[in-house]
Amino acid sequence: MTDRLLDATHDPALQSWVPSANEPGTDFPIQNLPYGAFRRVGRDEPLRIGVAIGDQVLDLKLAAAQAGWPADVQPLLAPLAAGDLNALMAQGAPARRQLRAALSQALRAGSPQQAALAGALVPQSEAAMAVPCRIGDYTDFYTGIHHATAVGKLFRPDNPLLPNYKWVPIGYHGRVSSIGVSGQRFRRPTGQTAGPEGTPLFGPVKRLDYELELGVFVGAGNAQGEPMTMAQAEDEWFGMVLLNDWSARDLQAWEYQPLGPFLSKSFATTISPWIVTQEALAPFRRPFTRPEGDPAPLPYLDSATNSERGALGLTIEVWLQTPAMAQPERLSCGNAADAYWTVAQMLTHHSSNGCNLQPGDLLGSGTLSGPNPDQAGSLLELTQGGKQAITLSSGETRTFLQDGDTVILKAYAEAPGARRVGFGECRGTVLG
Amino acid sequence: MTDRLLDATHDPALQSWVPSANEPGTDFPIQNLPYGAFRRVGRDEPLRIGVAIGDQVLDLKLAAAQAGWPADVQPLLAPLAAGDLNALMAQGAPARRQLRAALSQALRAGSPQQAALAGALVPQSEAAMAVPCRIGDYTDFYTGIHHATAVGKLFRPDNPLLPNYKWVPIGYHGRVSSIGVSGQRFRRPTGQTAGPEGTPLFGPVKRLDYELELGVFVGAGNAQGEPMTMAQAEDEWFGMVLLNDWSARDLQAWEYQPLGPFLSKSFATTISPWIVTQEALAPFRRPFTRPEGDPAPLPYLDSATNSERGALGLTIEVWLQTPAMAQPERLSCGNAADAYWTVAQMLTHHSSNGCNLQPGDLLGSGTLSGPNPDQAGSLLELTQGGKQAITLSSGETRTFLQDGDTVILKAYAEAPGARRVGFGECRGTVLG
Repeated sequence: MTDRLLDATHDPALQSWVPSANEPGTDFPIQNLPYGAFRRVGRDEPLRIGVAIGDQVLDLKLAAAQAGWPADVQPLLAPLAAGDLNALMAQGAPARRQLRAALSQALRAGSPQQAALAGALVPQSEAAMAVPCRIGDYTDFYTGIHHATAVGKLFRPDNPLLPNYKWVPIGYHGRVSSIGVSGQRFRRPTGQTAGPEGTPLFGPVKRLDYELELGVFVGAGNAQGEPMTMAQAEDEWFGMVLLNDWSARDLQAWEYQPLGPFLSKSFATTISPWIVTQEALAPFRRPFTRPEGDPAPLPYLDSATNSERGALGLTIEVWLQTPAMAQPERLSCGNAADAYWTVAQMLTHHSSNGCNLQPGDLLGSGTLSGPNPDQAGSLLELTQGGKQAITLSSGETRTFLQDGDTVILKAYAEAPGARRVGFGECRGTVLG
Repeated sequence: MTDRLLDATHDPALQSWVPSANEPGTDFPIQNLPYGAFRRVGRDEPLRIGVAIGDQVLDLKLAAAQAGWPADVQPLLAPLAAGDLNALMAQGAPARRQLRAALSQALRAGSPQQAALAGALVPQSEAAMAVPCRIGDYTDFYTGIHHATAVGKLFRPDNPLLPNYKWVPIGYHGRVSSIGVSGQRFRRPTGQTAGPEGTPLFGPVKRLDYELELGVFVGAGNAQGEPMTMAQAEDEWFGMVLLNDWSARDLQAWEYQPLGPFLSKSFATTISPWIVTQEALAPFRRPFTRPEGDPAPLPYLDSATNSERGALGLTIEVWLQTPAMAQPERLSCGNAADAYWTVAQMLTHHSSNGCNLQPGDLLGSGTLSGPNPDQAGSLLELTQGGKQAITLSSGETRTFLQDGDTVILKAYAEAPGARRVGFGECRGTVLG
């Protein structure tokens, strides 16, 4: 079904001359080739752009200086060598595909570039990752219908799913300044919560939660006043990361009317460091369907391509490690294909009023919960609004997060005839 | 009451060697000295930072190259000469005051720098203004209680002012990419609106409105996880502009539940080009009081300074020019002192959860309507939700904006013993 999206870079038989990229469990085989920004540990240097391959990073500053790249790829490498991933994003889909093909050639077993590039590898253990690009704006959507329904029940028992949900890809603007990369550690926020006799309380929040999301980075984007079509939007997303939309539920309940969540979210947002490109995800695209009886999307949000392969089959997991645990424990396992709206629909809707999306803008999916209780992407859902504590393997219980807790998001995609690709980790820790 | 904020730069008798700065009606006397970014008309050059003085701009790239500046001011001028206003913002209040004093000395009548700086003046008519700095995040507040009440009545007749309003300075994240400077022209947005029998419509919006706001630029800001106190916040705002938060009311009504306004706002936001510093506004600070019977702010949002001079006496006006009018007509005239929350409260609340505010971040006040009908800061209020058209001097009527309409916001401050200062214009036009 997605044949025209697939090319030689997706061949599951491809092997790399980087041995760790060929191990079965790696998130970063040669079929993946995600981009990230890093500094070598212990060095005070400008950020560099790299490509993850096995347990290594191909340092594009070092790699671009080597001979052997096709002449038409050198101009694409130049801004990356200078640390600017937004420049590649701005070039759009053809450039992205061209560079992917060149990187695949360069890193595959038997490549004539092997000798030159061996010195451009940095072990991932020696790379301190950073937010991968300049994020101009961050928008968070609400595409997880099972999450929207479950949370709606808690906030509005009589009216869980609002009348606009199946028509509008609901979204809101988020905070850019507090976005951090995996490894982020943040203090438990303080704030106002509803109090007795109408007078609110102020202090450390009590209902601190995570939200399992995917983050989509925008590619070339659109000019102000010129909305994207669904066909344009298909090409206009660069790639994806995991995203933890940390949420203080007690702040949220008190502050969110009438203008939406604000301080309940803006204290921290954590993303995984490697942007898995839409090309790497092509083998995992699936038909996008809606439950029998649900309305079809309005024409501006509909296309044959979206129906044929708008959804993405991607296993998404939440793990928790408390200070008392030796190893993290998995709390939930769902699938991104359960989202009610596709990436192309998010971009198209976002630009439909003429709003300009720019290279490097970040769009969150909203919490991706599945239909089953063990597929819930937040503690709010797993504990039924904090009413039913979960018991961990350590014997501890949790309704919401405690100080010292570390939440780890993971994602990977598998499909028949395709090499498994993964996202690495999105890890964050609550400090006291 | 504000004596310790006042110094020699506020002396109403000060005159400039730039003659137009001494005219009674000017927005930009030597007591103002606002910052903006510009290019000389017809030149393809990087943005420059300038200071408005009368009908001229002191070009800081040219000015910094001249002799005569105090040695401790030269390091402050250097980034400005390179076009970087955020660098000055990041330096905080002492640097801001130091540079203001130096500019006041340099531009006053009899200054020994006059001869050197005369060549650094650019007529404002030859300066194409731009957004004055890099805006990392834009947050819009809701501090106009008369607006919140009037709009609340339209959306929730039984419950206009929600229980959190008098406790929480309500705010939400806004869109940075579509912020433009005075002169912005944008296409009427398209989008989803509620339709018959539950199926929404998609097309050009019908209820396009303006919102009269002030925009506050953040100074040095705060580190993530380290909230500001009210005392810190007093110093941590750089200055103000006018802000038109264009709003599509029909989109807003359909999309805003449960996560707040999104596409109803993000198509365009217009600001005035000159940032009037908090120092220039010092003579117009007023006691901040609340109506009898209203709760006192929670302690984290309260301070003696805020009570003594948290409010700002600033006349704010909306003017409309339709294509049929020879001259614009004033639609409303209010005062910024009617806001229910002060600037320091906005900053303190915003950072109270640990959210980091950064130099150049923009905070909108929310629509500033007064208690009287002719002080309403939006058409939604002036026309009672579009039910009562207003009649213009041209004989035309309006419920909401029509294609070709230009909205002009103006603001100025006057007080006994102070020289009047103004903001210039914030002008924007709806295209078909």
